[in-house]
Amino acid sequence: MEKRVADLWVTEYQTKNMRLGLRIKEVLCNKDTPYQHLLVVDTLEYGKVMLLDGAIQITEKDEFTYHEMMAHILMCSHPNPRRVLVVGGGDGGTVREVVKHPSLEKVYLVDIDEEVINASRRYFPSVSCELDNEKVEIKPMDAIQFIKERKDFFDIVIVDSTDPVDFAEGLFKRDFYSDVFHALRQDGMMIAQTESPFAEADIVKDAYNEMSKVFPIVKMCWGAMPTYPTGMWTYTIGSKGPDPAKPLRDVPAKTKYYSRSLHEASFVLPGFVVQLLKGEEGK
Amino acid sequence: MEKRVADLWVTEYQTKNMRLGLRIKEVLCNKDTPYQHLLVVDTLEYGKVMLLDGAIQITEKDEFTYHEMMAHILMCSHPNPRRVLVVGGGDGGTVREVVKHPSLEKVYLVDIDEEVINASRRYFPSVSCELDNEKVEIKPMDAIQFIKERKDFFDIVIVDSTDPVDFAEGLFKRDFYSDVFHALRQDGMMIAQTESPFAEADIVKDAYNEMSKVFPIVKMCWGAMPTYPTGMWTYTIGSKGPDPAKPLRDVPAKTKYYSRSLHEASFVLPGFVVQLLKGEEGK
Repeated sequence: MEKRVADLWVTEYQTKNMRLGLRIKEVLCNKDTPYQHLLVVDTLEYGKVMLLDGAIQITEKDEFTYHEMMAHILMCSHPNPRRVLVVGGGDGGTVREVVKHPSLEKVYLVDIDEEVINASRRYFPSVSCELDNEKVEIKPMDAIQFIKERKDFFDIVIVDSTDPVDFAEGLFKRDFYSDVFHALRQDGMMIAQTESPFAEADIVKDAYNEMSKVFPIVKMCWGAMPTYPTGMWTYTIGSKGPDPAKPLRDVPAKTKYYSRSLHEASFVLPGFVVQLLKGEEGK
Repeated sequence: MEKRVADLWVTEYQTKNMRLGLRIKEVLCNKDTPYQHLLVVDTLEYGKVMLLDGAIQITEKDEFTYHEMMAHILMCSHPNPRRVLVVGGGDGGTVREVVKHPSLEKVYLVDIDEEVINASRRYFPSVSCELDNEKVEIKPMDAIQFIKERKDFFDIVIVDSTDPVDFAEGLFKRDFYSDVFHALRQDGMMIAQTESPFAEADIVKDAYNEMSKVFPIVKMCWGAMPTYPTGMWTYTIGSKGPDPAKPLRDVPAKTKYYSRSLHEASFVLPGFVVQLLKGEEGK
């Protein structure tokens, strides 16, 4: 007789009309932080999963695709990335990838919610494993404030934020991109996760347009990310000079998703995304 | 006061431990055919959706990514595609894309289940719109039998099948690939949908390995497909000679996903897929 198990699921309402359910073995952490609801569950399909305000942030099985794209696209195309800022990303996955690059002198991790960092340290050792690296400085504070206070300071800014609602909404606005621009040194570049063109076409388009008002060079790339809505994820880059689509070096460590050739390929956008950015969708 | 609506959903169990739910407005067709269960629903997120045995086959909103990849990768890389076979694909989406190519003389659509074809004609006019094209010949029969009876006949075979269970299981086997090989003319090529490397790594690997025992050239490409499990979909190609990764021409009609540059980019596989095909995953 087959072993009977409890029929226990966690469900993310990816939109009002679409939901992803994952069968779970156990609830590991379920609490309100001062900023959001934090849930960590152990699932059968994706291993341990962290949700913030009901939205999946990372899973053990697929987090590598997102974190490698967030880190290596710019770390490999900037001529000499030394000082890096990660906005959000309290789980530490982006930092883990950034420290693979020997040119790095310091990476600042600025996440408003320290409890996310603590939960990642406790439940996701394979993600948070570089948070104690000597090149990492953790600042649990509002990134919008942090960045306003620094001018001509960073080579790369990585906006590893939650969806643009509530306190993260400002991270998708022109004013914030402008603050990032001024916080960047010569040759500086920023990258932001900018949602799915299938589920959130307006966000994709607005982020691209807002960034284009601030940076002389703006490009978009994309990749697979199974547990984010629709599985197709975009990343929008603003650059003061270097071409983010042209990798200058390989990652000097093991990667599972990113490669130099994938870097170049990720900038080839499907036709409907090209049309969306041109404002010609539906024509 | 906000309008109240019934909380009505359709759910696909994508694996035993993962399910996708879509809010529906209406059930349009719900019946057993001689071969499978056929469900057509109208959803708020993806428009009309067809499910066979509970698995999403097409949605109005995202079917174009899959059908354009299935058709144009080979139609654009074969030197002169004149005679084409579509195995399965009763909805007509792949045929709609194939007939965009002027070199085409005849496309045979061989789907075992005529009721799928009829449902597509009735509920998906934007997908089935070319089924009455004079270059299309529809054969409601078992494709495995159909192909055994033809030697040195087709330029391209497109295996637009359901998942490899029940009557579709044989479409993922070496014997079938061998029959396809013999049914292909000189320079002939086949393409098959081969599932997601995240959800069904074994199927991806097995299809690639089985095809490699039959065809001298085997390559894999991938693309976004939101309503298939994990949203990342692979396509495996066997070729008697032409390089499927090298497009020779553009599609002489409008496309929404495919382009010549996306064709080339789609053959750049993420690192973990390369490792999977080498049999070195986890090493």
